[in-house]
Parts: sequence; structure tokens; C-alpha cells
Amino acid sequence: MAIKKLKIACSGLGRMGARHALHFLEKTPRAELVAAFSPDEKEIAWARSKLEPFGVKLYTDYEEMLKHPGLEAVVVATATTVHAEQAIKAIEKDLHVLCEKPLSTRVDLSQGVVDAAKKKPHLKVMCGFSRRFDASYRDAYNRLDNGDIGRACVFRSQTCDKLDPSGFFVDYAQFSGGIFVDCNIHDIDLCLWYFGDSRVKSVTAVGITAVQPALRKYGDVDNGVGVVEFHDDRVAYFYSSRIMAAGQHDMTEVIGTEGKLTINANPMGGLVEMSEPSGVRREIPPDYYGRFKEAFITEANEFTEACLENKKLPFKISAAVDAVRIGCALQESLRSGKKIYFDEVGNRIEKANL
Amino acid sequence: MAIKKLKIACSGLGRMGARHALHFLEKTPRAELVAAFSPDEKEIAWARSKLEPFGVKLYTDYEEMLKHPGLEAVVVATATTVHAEQAIKAIEKDLHVLCEKPLSTRVDLSQGVVDAAKKKPHLKVMCGFSRRFDASYRDAYNRLDNGDIGRACVFRSQTCDKLDPSGFFVDYAQFSGGIFVDCNIHDIDLCLWYFGDSRVKSVTAVGITAVQPALRKYGDVDNGVGVVEFHDDRVAYFYSSRIMAAGQHDMTEVIGTEGKLTINANPMGGLVEMSEPSGVRREIPPDYYGRFKEAFITEANEFTEACLENKKLPFKISAAVDAVRIGCALQESLRSGKKIYFDEVGNRIEKANL
Amino acid sequence: MAIKKLKIACSGLGRMGARHALHFLEKTPRAELVAAFSPDEKEIAWARSKLEPFGVKLYTDYEEMLKHPGLEAVVVATATTVHAEQAIKAIEKDLHVLCEKPLSTRVDLSQGVVDAAKKKPHLKVMCGFSRRFDASYRDAYNRLDNGDIGRACVFRSQTCDKLDPSGFFVDYAQFSGGIFVDCNIHDIDLCLWYFGDSRVKSVTAVGITAVQPALRKYGDVDNGVGVVEFHDDRVAYFYSSRIMAAGQHDMTEVIGTEGKLTINANPMGGLVEMSEPSGVRREIPPDYYGRFKEAFITEANEFTEACLENKKLPFKISAAVDAVRIGCALQESLRSGKKIYFDEVGNRIEKANL
Amino acid sequence: MAIKKLKIACSGLGRMGARHALHFLEKTPRAELVAAFSPDEKEIAWARSKLEPFGVKLYTDYEEMLKHPGLEAVVVATATTVHAEQAIKAIEKDLHVLCEKPLSTRVDLSQGVVDAAKKKPHLKVMCGFSRRFDASYRDAYNRLDNGDIGRACVFRSQTCDKLDPSGFFVDYAQFSGGIFVDCNIHDIDLCLWYFGDSRVKSVTAVGITAVQPALRKYGDVDNGVGVVEFHDDRVAYFYSSRIMAAGQHDMTEVIGTEGKLTINANPMGGLVEMSEPSGVRREIPPDYYGRFKEAFITEANEFTEACLENKKLPFKISAAVDAVRIGCALQESLRSGKKIYFDEVGNRIEKANL
Repeated sequence: MAIKKLKIACSGLGRMGARHALHFLEKTPRAELVAAFSPDEKEIAWARSKLEPFGVKLYTDYEEMLKHPGLEAVVVATATTVHAEQAIKAIEKDLHVLCEKPLSTRVDLSQGVVDAAKKKPHLKVMCGFSRRFDASYRDAYNRLDNGDIGRACVFRSQTCDKLDPSGFFVDYAQFSGGIFVDCNIHDIDLCLWYFGDSRVKSVTAVGITAVQPALRKYGDVDNGVGVVEFHDDRVAYFYSSRIMAAGQHDMTEVIGTEGKLTINANPMGGLVEMSEPSGVRREIPPDYYGRFKEAFITEANEFTEACLENKKLPFKISAAVDAVRIGCALQESLRSGKKIYFDEVGNRIEKANL
Repeated sequence: MAIKKLKIACSGLGRMGARHALHFLEKTPRAELVAAFSPDEKEIAWARSKLEPFGVKLYTDYEEMLKHPGLEAVVVATATTVHAEQAIKAIEKDLHVLCEKPLSTRVDLSQGVVDAAKKKPHLKVMCGFSRRFDASYRDAYNRLDNGDIGRACVFRSQTCDKLDPSGFFVDYAQFSGGIFVDCNIHDIDLCLWYFGDSRVKSVTAVGITAVQPALRKYGDVDNGVGVVEFHDDRVAYFYSSRIMAAGQHDMTEVIGTEGKLTINANPMGGLVEMSEPSGVRREIPPDYYGRFKEAFITEANEFTEACLENKKLPFKISAAVDAVRIGCALQESLRSGKKIYFDEVGNRIEKANL
Repeated sequence: MAIKKLKIACSGLGRMGARHALHFLEKTPRAELVAAFSPDEKEIAWARSKLEPFGVKLYTDYEEMLKHPGLEAVVVATATTVHAEQAIKAIEKDLHVLCEKPLSTRVDLSQGVVDAAKKKPHLKVMCGFSRRFDASYRDAYNRLDNGDIGRACVFRSQTCDKLDPSGFFVDYAQFSGGIFVDCNIHDIDLCLWYFGDSRVKSVTAVGITAVQPALRKYGDVDNGVGVVEFHDDRVAYFYSSRIMAAGQHDMTEVIGTEGKLTINANPMGGLVEMSEPSGVRREIPPDYYGRFKEAFITEANEFTEACLENKKLPFKISAAVDAVRIGCALQESLRSGKKIYFDEVGNRIEKANL
Repeated sequence: MAIKKLKIACSGLGRMGARHALHFLEKTPRAELVAAFSPDEKEIAWARSKLEPFGVKLYTDYEEMLKHPGLEAVVVATATTVHAEQAIKAIEKDLHVLCEKPLSTRVDLSQGVVDAAKKKPHLKVMCGFSRRFDASYRDAYNRLDNGDIGRACVFRSQTCDKLDPSGFFVDYAQFSGGIFVDCNIHDIDLCLWYFGDSRVKSVTAVGITAVQPALRKYGDVDNGVGVVEFHDDRVAYFYSSRIMAAGQHDMTEVIGTEGKLTINANPMGGLVEMSEPSGVRREIPPDYYGRFKEAFITEANEFTEACLENKKLPFKISAAVDAVRIGCALQESLRSGKKIYFDEVGNRIEKANL
């Protein structure tokens, strides 16, 4: 008996694109990676040895790839600047889409993806908020949903990268949308997930350039703190950093009226502890992939299953616009130095409405 | 050979006052608790059995107590509203003073204590910032001072109390100065200690009433988040809460350009861990005294030694005003919903000066 | 281009057999699960819905399955009592074998597998010591091998199962070989791996029946402590238990002359911590699969790769006999109450030879 | 009103003696340290500056000190070899005695102290098992006593010292009674406390000299593992080491039929954690005093109170003989390489009695 597999293509074969391609090739039994696209010769060279031998057709033209015979779905993992455009083109070709986060660094472009998806309700269009697929975040959500900590009212979350002394992230800042859009977007999405339909009342953000003053020219920082007030008497605060010495430390804390849930308070790179003359030491993951690899694989499998069986996706594509909207407002507050206020229906207002 | 002991009196015998009295009576070998004052009959009754038998003279009139023969020092541990007044009176009587924090909930009254102290440079006048005497905070400071984490640039600190279902803290809020002045004052002081002479650029605060909406009538909240920007490209953020389910969790994190120091990330009430059908569990201290008892005793001993041997106190009394100033600004921002800006010499300004 | 995949069959579809089957079916891209055998109707029923639709041929006769066209390898995951016999039959059919641990509860039968394998040096024959494939155990081994803790001299390791109130393990004890052969076999194997070629000098074991006195009739216990001395001045001690309240806790500690490595000192079922009125709590894995799932998958993939590319296996099949020999000696010491001595070439001797 | 204080003397002013003297001088409000004895000129010189100025009379003759006017109690903290003799002399002078552990490295001499104490039932005679006064061990005991973990049946405990590269402990081994008597005596005492009146069925011990082969000439080792079986189906196992790289790690685990209690599984020298390029690190206490300082102070205060108010001591002096008996049997087993058996009334028997 032949088993139906989802024919999927991967657009973009950079750091994360290559991982997505391999996840669909090797770790997603119900998917068949049939094609891959990259405009970059080095990436194509990599694909020639790692993908092509397994039957993956390589393309250097995105639109050509969309015409690959029998193609059903695309994972968009190119540079953020073309996420929205590529996602929309795929949707228009009647293909399911898994688009890396953020949809765009701009709210309007992000909304464009949502609008395109709305016209094709039979398609599965999802933003790759990997933490939504992480077992620990799901466990925490289920406990919260079960009432274990009463009403969630304070949310703290951080995305902290290991310091990259190469200064790579300075140039990257031109296109990333800034630290709140690029890093805290995950934390913001988690907050919206855990708080449900809370509406933003105000945002404020501040930040510093601890090691890379050059970031200022792009209106960005290497350490940012943002605070979001909600109209239903809840508050969230976020921290992002690009200067962690020990490694990646993404963590979240949800405080409720009857308890608290903490996710990854004490990061660990494995289960080994070293006792040495200088004390007791453990290593921690060097990057987000070290923390979230399993979540990415779960994402690939669940997206595949949703496409094949026309199942509901675990969250709506519009969530991605909500997160970008808050991320952009935080970034704006960082740049202007001003607090930004919203009324209960989401319109910006000039003054606090206490 | 007779050993010289410091003759000290304790003003106030409430929760913390009684502890101070016992620390000086039993845990401070070089001090002699000679007198104690309380206007409260219940407190006096307690003192009659716990202090009087050990030679402590009890007073119901503060000024009478200040005349106690041979008295050299006073610990002021009454209600916050009279801290400053009592401290000043003791200074004027030429007595050393250890005053519980905060000196006052108002900046001007706090400054009054500093002014009084300045006129008597031979006296030791100290604000009871107990965490300054905590072994772990000192250890962290020394590592920071030693350059172990490079330049400290981000500071996070929280004071989180176990939920008191009695609602005691609602009435208390009338006099406490608010959650940023009452709770985060410690975190603010630690920040100023660790950052050195950084000058405030802006403050913002938000908060919610998760379990005690009645706090609003006093302009207070039961969960607050405050952010302080400094002119030298540093940032601090604070959290305070009165609704922790498990117990007291005061913790601090200092992020530097080359590393991070964390103090009490994982609170523990002891060294016992229970493995049960529901998992692995540990208890945590129910209140700040469970966390800081040893620090209070060290404080008593070091204050005593400084008085007896005319040694320098570990920090200046003016630090207490700096902390109150920031705490009050945070509380004001909480109430107004506005961000507050300061120029480089500490004057308030209307707009962000980017 | 067609990619060569290893055609493998799974013998036994019980708890662990079913997992192996699924690992080869879904998590081992270079393997093709072509056949499965079980003598048990319920297991076959399971396979009919979970394996057959994916092209897996089901057999109720082991020897028939060995004749499956094109079959190259077999994973033996039936009851321990038939491990050796089935492994030998597969070897004789010129098939690679991955045999679940232990090869047998008897040393001579285990040796039979080794002898059969020796005659077919072109075959890959491996015992499923899953911890050898665990990332943390490998990390610890590499640190040890790198000299990070000097010379390893003390080894402590435990295999502790969550209490199963059904009493299942009483009946199971008839065939399991006893707690040291069934549970500590892993710890013994790790010890031999980490210590290298140390030779046993003595073994002693004691044990109790804390919750299942009925185990005594099979010469078994529900908590055992075993000590193994080695001739090269090293010592190992083992603990096994079947009564853990909180869940599975397998852990290991290796003490060297310059440091210590600990693997899984603090078991965690995920990254979520709950703060509740009773304290701070975390859950732990309910069983060994919760701890070692990834190791089993790595095992399947590495075994497959070794077969396909004629690579060296990570450890010799003879290691499995060495572990059974020590496990059986511990079990014998438990039953007789006596210490057992060995000379430097492995012969039993009557008295200590100090 | 004059408060009655216990007039106490300290015999021995070495490492631990000096600490005891200071605890009674500074940390025990109801005690008055009136005298101190040492035969060692360096110790006397220390006492001249640290004790004499506070009114402590110094003696270089133990028996002279016992005649100190008004003396009521003695803490014996000299070399282990004279513990018993000094304790007995003090008892005969009608003085309360707190004797450092062990009473003696020999069972008969230890029993001599018990016999002397029996003749003076009005005296308080206690062995300084400091862990009995540790808050965490008491907490664990109370939970156990409360039935929180069902019936305690397996006990694991270790005393592990930081490696002292000076090799001091080689010479010390001549008098210490060996590692099981010197180090594990605490663990054995805890076991007897937690298990209640369990009777020993067998003991076995093995050990190695990982860094100090010279210990062998005194029948000692630098790493020892001992196992004790009890007649009531319980088992205890002990580990002691003198080669820990990171610092002191004394820990205990009590496994019951319904749960487990762990005391100090994760040693910490403070509440500071360092995040560095090499990972996350904490320091641990360098020695037992860093772990048990507070317990020693509690011991001093409770002993004082028991003497002054004729209160029951927290445990009987005979417990100290029971612990030495087991420690000596373990040491004998280590030396002979043989397992030692006892019948239910404590007589040694030749063979296992299963």
C-alpha cells in the first residue's frame, strides 16, 4: 500500500533554510522534499551534495520552483525581506506555506500575507513560531489553561543570544527590523498565546549598545528592555540581548494569581556537570537551535500532517501580525524614547488614558 | 580586662524592631542593648518578657529613651513615617544611628537625615539596606569590582513577597510610599551600588492589581515593573510583587560585557529536596527574614564595630536618598502613566533628549 | 538517483520492540523496515495498523521472517530468554544483528552470541546498550578521555525505576536474571566503558525487598546495592531500585584524581518548573524511555550506518558478556550473602588476595 | 536582674577547638567561656590575643583547668586520641561534657565515656555530632518521622573532603582511626538516627588510594565505599573521599517506600552563579565548616541550654559508641577484604545467616 506523502519545497538554504530542508528530508516521515531554491551559489553547492542525491531538484529561480510538478507546499526560509513576497506568491500558486518568522519587519507587509491566505481558506499558511511547538512551552500552556496558576497576569520573557564577536549582527541589523522585532518577536508571540486576547494599552522600550555602538546607526541596540501594558490589567516585560557570554538563554516566566510557571530558568546544554577546582560547572546551548531543534522538527511534522489531513493548524496566521505590530511599536519606542499608548480597539492615542 | 561594648537602644519593637532588638541582644557580642522604646502596649508586653530580664530598660517615650544614661547609638525600626524624625532627633542628641529603610517615603525628608548627619561627621549614620550586608551580594559585588564580567550594563532585580491572603498590605499601602518605594528600594540601592555613579536618564513604571484592586485607591499595585535608563548607556529593570504562591523570591542579575552574575536565581528554604509521586520539590523561604537573617546580624555587628572603632561605614547615608528619589519617580510614573526624563545633572526635563 | 537503504526486520513487538520498529520506520532515514515478527496476537494486531500500512510484512514465525527477501539486518527485541538464540540464528543467516540487552541472563549463552559473531567478521553484531548512544554519556566519556578529571578511580551509577504498584515486576523477576542483571547491567557496561580494561577483583551485593517481599522466591530484591573492586585500584558501586516515587532516576558519577563528572544528577522531565504554595516543583521522566528516547534513535541510525558503510561499531559485542558476567556475580553475591573474589586473570578464588 | 550563664571551658584550641571556643565566646549568649586549655604553645599564643582579652583564663594543664573556680562544663576538642580520657576526667569532676566526635577510634574506650556518664545521670554528656544540629538534617528527620516518605529503607550518605595537596592527611591517618571512623562516622550516626533501632547484619568495605598510596601503611585509603545491611531489611551505603576537586560535598539520601529525601544534593558555597564563556559555574564550600558552621553554633547553644535548664539532650551518648562500632567494623573489613557478619543481638558470627 502506498502512503501519501506531502511534496514540499524549501526556499532559502542559509543557516535556517538548510536546517528546514534537512528536517523535511530526514525527520519528517510523511513529507517528501522534492525541490529547493536558493539564489546563492554557495548554498546551491551545499545542496548539491546534501539534497540532490536524495532526489531533491535544485532551483535558482523561486518562481520556477513553484512550478515543480506535483508540488503541494513550500517552506519559506529566505531573508526576512522577501518572506512576505514569497509567501504570497506561493499562496497564489495554491500551495501550503510554512513561513519563517517574522512574516515581515513591517506590519502592512505581514498583513498582506494574512490577506492572501484569507482568500484561500483551503490552504494551510503558518508562521514558524518554533516555540509554539516546544514540548516545555506546550506543557506550561496546558498547565496554565488547566488553571494551575490561577489567572496569568505578569509575563516575563527573554531571548538572549551568545555574544558573536564577529560583529555579524551589526550589518544584519539593517534588515532585521531591530532587536524587538527580530529577537523578542518570539517572546511577544508567547505572551499573546498565554494571555489570550489581551489588548495592548501601552508600550515602552529602552536599550543600550554595550558592545556594538555601531548598531545605533540602524536605530538598534544590543540589549533591549520592553514593557507592554494590557487593557485587562496584565503586564508583560521583555529582555533581549546579543551579548551573553555563556550561550543562548531564552526563558519565560508566567506569574498567575495562584502560582508561577517558569520555562528554562536554568539553561543546560546536556546532563553533564563538571566538578573542578574552580567549582561546579555546566555548559549551555550555544544558539537557539541547540535549544529548539526538537521544536523545529515537531513543527515540520505537524505542518505536514495538517496539510495532508486538512487539520487545523495550532495557531492562526494573524497571530504573526499581532506580534509584529507589538515588536514594531517597541522598536519605535526605543528609537523615539517615548511611551506609546493605544485605546481599547487598538488605535494609537496621544496620552495615557488612566 | 573589661571589653568596651556599644550601648545601644532599639526604637520600635514591631516585626522588624523586635528582630533588631534580639540581634543586638544575642548576636552582637560587642553591643549591649540597654534600652528599647515602643508606643505600643503589645510590643512593650513582649519586651517585658524577652528584653527586660536581660537588663534592657523599656521606654514608652522616645525622647526619654534618648536620655538613657550612657547611650551611644540607636537603631530606628519604627513605622516608616517617623523614621526620619527619630533619626534626626537621635543625631541631634549625638547618637550613632542605624535607621531602617527607607529613611522616608519622601525625598525631602530623607534628605533631612542626610543634612543632620553632615553636621555631625563624627557620628555613624546608616540606612539599613540589609542586602548590602548579605554574603552573596558582597561576593557578587567583589567579582564585579574585580572585572570578572567586564563592564556591568544591564541590571535586573526583584523583590517578591509571598501572597498574604489577609490583605494586610492594602492598609499598609497608605503609608508605605508604594511598591517601588517599599519593595524595590532594595533593588534600586543594589543597582546604584553595582553601577557606581550612574545618573538617571529616564524612569517608567507600570503595574497591576492582580489580587487587591483596593490598592488603587492609594495609587499602588500588587505587581509592578519599572525601568530605569542611565545616561552612561546602562539600563536597570525591576519587578516587585506581593502575590508569590511559593514564598519570598528576591533575586538579582547583573549582565556585563563579558559575563553575568546571578544572585539567588533558585530560591531555597534549606538543603532538603523531596521526591514524591508529584515530582521533586523544594520549599522556599516564606519571607525576607528567611532569606536575609544572616545579613541583618552582620549589619548589626558591622554597625557596632564602626561605632566603637570609628571605622568607615560600608556605604554613605546619601545613598539612601538616591534610592528614595528613584523609587518615588517610579511610583509617580506608575500613577501618571507617563515616562519621566532627567538631564545629566539630575533635573527633570519635559522631553526625551536623545 | 536511488539511495541504498538497509532492509531490516524487527523481532518482538512488545514495549521495547514496538519502539524499535517505529524508530526504524520513522526516525532512521537510511533504514527500511521491511518485516516484523511477533508470536503474540495482540502485538500483531498493533502492527497491522501501525506497521503494515507502511509496507512492513508481518510474521508469526521468526525463522520465516529471516527468509524475507533481501533482508539484511534484524533487531532482536523479544523476551530476554530468547535473545541469544534468535541473535545466533540471524547471524547464521548472514544478517547483521542489533540485540536488546542483555544478550542473555547467563554468561555462557551470552558468550554463544559472541562466538557466533566471531565466525562472521563481516557482520555487525551489537548489543543494545542504549546509554552508549546517549549524548550526555558520550560527552562525559569524551571529557574523561580528554583527561579533564585526571584518572577515573571511583564510579557510582544507579538505575532506579518508578514504583509500579501493579507488582508486574514480581512475575517478571523469574526471567529477568535479577535486578543486577536486568537494571544495573547498563551501569556495569558504562563502568567498563569509562574504566577501560580494568579487571574485577571482588564483588559484593546486598539488597532488600522494601515493597515486594514476593521477589525473594526468585532470589531477587527491589533495592540492591553492589560493590565491585578492580585490580587496578579502582572501585565501582551500583544501586538499583524499583520503588522510586517520583519517576525514573538513572544517574552516574565518575570521580577522578582531578575532578568529577556527573550525568543526570538532577532528573528533569522537561524545562518547566512550577511555583506553588507547597514550594517549587518539577516533574521527572516516568520511565527509561522518557530519559533515553533520543539515545535509542541514535542507536538505530548508527547501527544502520555501520551496516551500510561497513563502519566499526562504537563498542564490541564482547562487552556485553563482560557486563553479564559482573551482573551475574553480583546477583550470586546477593543470594549467597558472600563476597566473591577473582584473580587478575578472571578466575574465581576462595579468599581475598590482599 | 542577673541572668545565669553556663561557665564553660574549652579543651584544645586547634582548628576545631578554636572554633568551639569562639562559638561559646561570641555566639552563645547563655554561655560564658571562662577557661581554655592547650598543650600547644602556638595555640596558646592565638588564645592570648583572641580569648584572654575577653576574660578567658588560659591553661596549659588540662587538670588544672578542670579546677577553674565555678566551672560547670567542658567542651573537649583536643586530638581524638585523648577525647575519651579527658571526657571521663571532666565527668569525674562533675562537669557537663560536650566531646568532639569520635569519642575514640576504639569501641572500648568510647564505651568508657558512656559508662562514666551513666554514673552521673545529672550531667549532660554529649558527642559533637554536628549534623544532628543542622537545620536541613533536622527538617529531613521531621519529614521522615512524619511519615512523608513511608518507611525509610535505603540510606546513602557521603563525606567528601576537598583534596588537600599538602598530603596532611597521610600523617593524620595514623591517629584518625581510618576514613570510615574519621569521615563516615557522621554518616553512620545519621543512619542510626534516621533508621531508629535497626541492628547491623553485615558490613563490607573496600577502598582505594587514588592520590596517596602512602595511606596503605596505616591501613587506610583516600576513597572508601562501605555497605551496611540491617536485620530489619534495610541497607545503608557510605562513601568517603579526600580527593574532591571542587570542595566539600557531604550529602545524604534517604529512600522510603513512598518517597525520597535528599539533603545537599547540589552543594553551594553561596547564592551567586557565574555565567562565563565556559558555561555557568558556582563555587562550593571548601570544607565542612563552610557547610556546617551554623550547626556548630546551634550545638553550642542547645548544649548550653540543656545544661542550664536540665533539659534532655537531643540524642544519647550511647549513640556515639554505636557509630564507632560500625565505623571500626567497616575499617576492619576494608583491611581484611572480608565481609563481617553479626547476629540479631550484635555478636559477630562467622557465616552469613540467610
